[in-house]
Amino acid sequence: MGVNDEFDLIHQYFEPLSAGAPGARGLLDDAATLSPSQGCELVVTMDTVVAGVHYLADEKPTNIVAKLMGSNLSDLAAMGATPRGFTLSCAWPKDIERDDIQAFAHAMGDWTQAYSFPLLGGDTVTTTGNAVFTICAFGDTPLGKAISRNGAKVGDDVYVTGSLGDGALGLLAAQKKLSEISEDDQTYLADRYRVPQPRVSVGQSLIGLANACIDISDGLIQDLGHVAHASNVQIDLQISAIPLSDAANRIIESNPEMMSLVLSGGDDYELAFTGPSVPDNCDVPITCIGKVVDGDPGVMARATDGSLVEIAKSGYNHFA
Amino acid sequence: MGVNDEFDLIHQYFEPLSAGAPGARGLLDDAATLSPSQGCELVVTMDTVVAGVHYLADEKPTNIVAKLMGSNLSDLAAMGATPRGFTLSCAWPKDIERDDIQAFAHAMGDWTQAYSFPLLGGDTVTTTGNAVFTICAFGDTPLGKAISRNGAKVGDDVYVTGSLGDGALGLLAAQKKLSEISEDDQTYLADRYRVPQPRVSVGQSLIGLANACIDISDGLIQDLGHVAHASNVQIDLQISAIPLSDAANRIIESNPEMMSLVLSGGDDYELAFTGPSVPDNCDVPITCIGKVVDGDPGVMARATDGSLVEIAKSGYNHFA
Repeated sequence: MGVNDEFDLIHQYFEPLSAGAPGARGLLDDAATLSPSQGCELVVTMDTVVAGVHYLADEKPTNIVAKLMGSNLSDLAAMGATPRGFTLSCAWPKDIERDDIQAFAHAMGDWTQAYSFPLLGGDTVTTTGNAVFTICAFGDTPLGKAISRNGAKVGDDVYVTGSLGDGALGLLAAQKKLSEISEDDQTYLADRYRVPQPRVSVGQSLIGLANACIDISDGLIQDLGHVAHASNVQIDLQISAIPLSDAANRIIESNPEMMSLVLSGGDDYELAFTGPSVPDNCDVPITCIGKVVDGDPGVMARATDGSLVEIAKSGYNHFA
Repeated sequence: MGVNDEFDLIHQYFEPLSAGAPGARGLLDDAATLSPSQGCELVVTMDTVVAGVHYLADEKPTNIVAKLMGSNLSDLAAMGATPRGFTLSCAWPKDIERDDIQAFAHAMGDWTQAYSFPLLGGDTVTTTGNAVFTICAFGDTPLGKAISRNGAKVGDDVYVTGSLGDGALGLLAAQKKLSEISEDDQTYLADRYRVPQPRVSVGQSLIGLANACIDISDGLIQDLGHVAHASNVQIDLQISAIPLSDAANRIIESNPEMMSLVLSGGDDYELAFTGPSVPDNCDVPITCIGKVVDGDPGVMARATDGSLVEIAKSGYNHFA
């Protein structure tokens, strides 16, 4: 069944996602109202995903939503913010099926509930090109305490959450380009690519503890490079310390050149942060992978013997 | 010259647009920080424009920016909000020229300065389809005082700012479909279509005075219908009272059937509001076009003799 009324669509599928947010005004007004919690300021971030660029063009609605919600929540996590809500813009291809929009909204409902992250408003339009979705996400941080990229200090340790490289290897798995590995490993990696696990609770626990934080969406070397340049420090990275999943480990043992995907591939949505120590009781493993040192701003990646490793491509760039 | 570095692009062209907003963090972080002014809450709205849908596919960057900024500021105006800043998502076609991005950012700078409306952050991506731009706009209103669509009261007068129908007639003029009218009228109308004049200062002066307000972006009948349904009232509209520009008036005198564009055409970006009176000293003419009455929710459009006029198409709907 096709779609013939955007207002009916909003009422039927999207208005339920605004539950718990009176400022959303039932998605009936020109705008929503929002205030930070007592003693807090709002953190605002915006992320766009494009069909065929950020996800495979034939991706299921549930996975499109995962990429969209995951990447925005990951940006909030990197600032140490508690999610508050979001606005959503959907530019749908004109021939979109009503079932696909319903599935999209339904999948989004799982995320709004899991993260207490209601829909506050947005815009629904059609496009003659491919689908484009944008979220503007809002979170709270204690006033003046949002974690920035520019606070890394010489002497800090450099930490990452979870495991790296699964996103880039997972894209290959989703494209059926890793047929030499087991079905289980293919499924694990493709899921890691498709369904980001934003590190929201770790991010919140980093407030007052981490000096700098970023989420690794464009590749470890590039994203740590942003921290190094913004903080005017050098980051000394021990390649052998980078945490790998069992599946990624098995691939790299037989194809060592694929380590470049771990260093420079996108879509990991893990946090990288610098500071003197890690929070207690995190819900995900945290690994020290290097040190903040004095020197020209940038990232120095070292092999086990201490020698510098040349990194050909540092990360994803939309216009490269 | 093509584009080969999104970070260079952001730094060179977009970072200057964040001047005056320390919370934008120089566009270097994962997110911006924002708090409402003392005694205020934030009003949040989101609008998307798509090449070939919301503006002509070969439109100049300066006019794309006008549509984008104008439509978002108009939504803030409808809530009575004072503009504070915005986040911007640009999905550029992969073959975009650097000069076009520069012209886009330059044009945006005129709006950020004119409305003290700085860029706070956003996302820059590429698409294999047509360009899609989304803004999430933030404004301040005194706590609990944002003007809603749902407050219209029986007995209120219904007012509109400026003149109506110029947007829809201007689209025809921009498409060179109104060759029978003078060059001056064509230029005037095409400009009205291309460059919305958001009624920001009128909107601010409506706080505490208007009971309901909406901006007329999808057509007068449809947008007043939203007010009527949200407020559970009937709106009695006197068609002859609708203010027309001289150019629109000349067209309708010789083509009375084009009055349907005035009633149902989009892109006017004027405000419609209900209340007992109008603010003093507005910077744009305000006209009473009807009355809020008791009755089934909806809009009754009347001819001079009081008879009801049937409206075939009430306004723009993306999926219709």
